[in-house]
Amino acid sequence: MSERAFIETFLRANSDYVTQKYQEKQNVTVTSKDSPVNLLTEVDLTIQKRFIDATAEAWPHDLVVGEESGHDRYPADPNGRIWVIDPIDGTYNFVRGLNPSFAISIAFMQDGLVQAAGVSMPLAGYYFFAEAGGGSFCNGRRLSVSRVQHLESACVEVDFSSVKNRRTILRRGAKIIREAAQLRSHGSAVAAICQIATGDADAYVHPGLHPWDYAAAQLIAEEAGALATRLDGQPLRVFDKKKGVLVTNGALHEQLLASLTR
Amino acid sequence: MSERAFIETFLRANSDYVTQKYQEKQNVTVTSKDSPVNLLTEVDLTIQKRFIDATAEAWPHDLVVGEESGHDRYPADPNGRIWVIDPIDGTYNFVRGLNPSFAISIAFMQDGLVQAAGVSMPLAGYYFFAEAGGGSFCNGRRLSVSRVQHLESACVEVDFSSVKNRRTILRRGAKIIREAAQLRSHGSAVAAICQIATGDADAYVHPGLHPWDYAAAQLIAEEAGALATRLDGQPLRVFDKKKGVLVTNGALHEQLLASLTR
Repeated sequence: MSERAFIETFLRANSDYVTQKYQEKQNVTVTSKDSPVNLLTEVDLTIQKRFIDATAEAWPHDLVVGEESGHDRYPADPNGRIWVIDPIDGTYNFVRGLNPSFAISIAFMQDGLVQAAGVSMPLAGYYFFAEAGGGSFCNGRRLSVSRVQHLESACVEVDFSSVKNRRTILRRGAKIIREAAQLRSHGSAVAAICQIATGDADAYVHPGLHPWDYAAAQLIAEEAGALATRLDGQPLRVFDKKKGVLVTNGALHEQLLASLTR
Repeated sequence: MSERAFIETFLRANSDYVTQKYQEKQNVTVTSKDSPVNLLTEVDLTIQKRFIDATAEAWPHDLVVGEESGHDRYPADPNGRIWVIDPIDGTYNFVRGLNPSFAISIAFMQDGLVQAAGVSMPLAGYYFFAEAGGGSFCNGRRLSVSRVQHLESACVEVDFSSVKNRRTILRRGAKIIREAAQLRSHGSAVAAICQIATGDADAYVHPGLHPWDYAAAQLIAEEAGALATRLDGQPLRVFDKKKGVLVTNGALHEQLLASLTR
């Protein structure tokens, strides 16, 4: 089985479980991690555990990097075979949210680059897949970014992140926040970046994401024509250390990069 | 038939049409109104037309105020029998959005107050209903606001509105934007205010809504225990002239009002 097929099989086998848990979420165990709004549920843990078990069986020598329970470490050798999973991106939305955005995100890396990626948004019934050089797809439809050319006609998703990082985004993104035609903030990086891939938004900015927040969605967006860089304009790598993320439809990239203050 | 039952019948008869149009939205006719991001679709027009026809038959002497095509005027006598409809709140999301928030909103007013309200979020399958003094419900479940007490642990929905009103919300809401634990912006006032009713968010702030943006949702929220005022703290009336809207779970209201700068 190819890595792409492995990701798809896993996502299709596990998305219904997430939807079911969401629908009975008053019974889901929720704890908080480093801050009261950084939430963890049994669903995050279960999905990650199932993925680790599945990879251990199919690819016993591969490394798994994941958001939860001790797997959130950077690999010693970033060029090896590495799987990067966010079992639920948007856990806060899962716990609190009306028609919320959350997603399961899985990337497969080799030679330091993401080779295959899959994202499931269980409530919406969306499955996104991409392979390096092979385009990206949502429910079988080939994706392509928007053609919006100017900030003043753009829909931009800004992630205001935690209060700790809020100051950074309010300062550096001030012009974007003031001038974008439409501003959205859904609270899931994975869903937000996939939204650039589908052309439903034109740009996304976040002051400092973890690898599992964008590893898969970045490939999905890039294969749809998006540009993704750090906020300093350097190429965005999965194991960058939280240098910020700007994903655009390409046409807007230079303008938005230039608008970011230091 | 009671006004409440009339609203329910209309929403249940028309929500599938909206979902269907969303699913084939590449074929939907979209035009823009006063600005390129203030969009209008054939779906907005069709829903409003159907509602006007339905009320004309059932309540021929009642007035209908609606967002579209010339019905967006304030009534000469605000104490008469008035229906207030937003056929699609969140039209931009309907046209552009991945798992988007949009809603049909209908309020019935008499003696200057909303007596019955209904909201449908077609994609999520949610039907909200409220009657003055009778509580509010989503899909039959009685709603109740959250108990979050402090801004620093609150999830606040901020509507950044159009660029024209952006400066106002960035200035007056600066403390909220800096200090709320979680910040969201989904781009539909109706859905955002219903989110306060369900307890999925703790507060909502908008610099200047139209009557049809909150007439129904305000009653749904208040009947779930929410407080709704203008940004100057005065009682929020449907035909206020865009004085801004603050809806909270009640516990947060005084703190958030005090935080708003002039």
